[in-house]
Amino acid sequence: MIFTAWAMLAVLGVYFWTGVMAGYARVKYGVPAPSMEGPAAFHSAQRVQANTLEQLPIVIVPLWLCATYLGDAWAAAGGLLWCVGRIAYALGYYRDPARREIGFVLGMVASALLIGGTVVGLLMH
Amino acid sequence: MIFTAWAMLAVLGVYFWTGVMAGYARVKYGVPAPSMEGPAAFHSAQRVQANTLEQLPIVIVPLWLCATYLGDAWAAAGGLLWCVGRIAYALGYYRDPARREIGFVLGMVASALLIGGTVVGLLMH
Amino acid sequence: MIFTAWAMLAVLGVYFWTGVMAGYARVKYGVPAPSMEGPAAFHSAQRVQANTLEQLPIVIVPLWLCATYLGDAWAAAGGLLWCVGRIAYALGYYRDPARREIGFVLGMVASALLIGGTVVGLLMH
Repeated sequence: MIFTAWAMLAVLGVYFWTGVMAGYARVKYGVPAPSMEGPAAFHSAQRVQANTLEQLPIVIVPLWLCATYLGDAWAAAGGLLWCVGRIAYALGYYRDPARREIGFVLGMVASALLIGGTVVGLLMH
Repeated sequence: MIFTAWAMLAVLGVYFWTGVMAGYARVKYGVPAPSMEGPAAFHSAQRVQANTLEQLPIVIVPLWLCATYLGDAWAAAGGLLWCVGRIAYALGYYRDPARREIGFVLGMVASALLIGGTVVGLLMH
Repeated sequence: MIFTAWAMLAVLGVYFWTGVMAGYARVKYGVPAPSMEGPAAFHSAQRVQANTLEQLPIVIVPLWLCATYLGDAWAAAGGLLWCVGRIAYALGYYRDPARREIGFVLGMVASALLIGGTVVGLLMH
């Protein structure tokens, strides 16, 4: 499952980038740990990381299940679609929280496709 | 590991439901992103999702390990017990935060059984 | 992948310990659920668990991929290094948030080694 393994690393890369941005916001806006209070842009950076973390379980597990029960290339394609959606989500949110929605929906569609692919693969067994 | 794969999807389904409830609370109580401030019921909905996310690593990984080293059906049964516990946790918490404890303990017992099953399976190898 | 399975349980054990410490802080400082407001030591305990949860995806997934594509013992060694780093991170943070950095960096190095090992393993396929 080579393609899926690379897609998994891409998913982790997108998530890692949101973590770096959240850590950078802590420095930029002078919010010392453990405080979580700061300006709106600080909260946005934290929320992007937190929401991406919240989405990880419903992409990583279905990615692996879909690769196992349906096929490597299908799963990897779903993983890459998720990456595109979550990059759009993050860039939109950083500019304006209201602009997070298209990327959010795209990420959800990718998760739904991976779960649907898993169910199809399981039913074919 | 077909049973475990279905149980994994059930675990993700319970988690997804807590996320939908947290998103719905944001709309219902008029809390615009990225704010995390709102009435107690808003905080409860957020905490249910956050706590369920916090529990996911100690069910998903043991579920997979237990299926690999002990057996598919045992692992799947542990995963379903976790789902029952976490649904009870969430419904209890939404009504009154003090009512979250039975479901919390049940989820923990399920995780402990899956980890115990993994250890038994590993020692038998 | 027996060594990696044990290392995975050790990773979950470190994470579980930070969760117990966060729950204990809620009792110790008298912060009833769903509130997240309390003294600095309460926030520190919460942040240690939250940050450890945030790091879990970039250790659990690379641990498994590295074991699959490079080798069981290499992956398990990376997982144990992560445990050492995160224990140092937590103990440092509990004493003084400024002391969290060495452990944080060590955990990151472990994740980077596991991801590097995965990439090497994938390129050799």
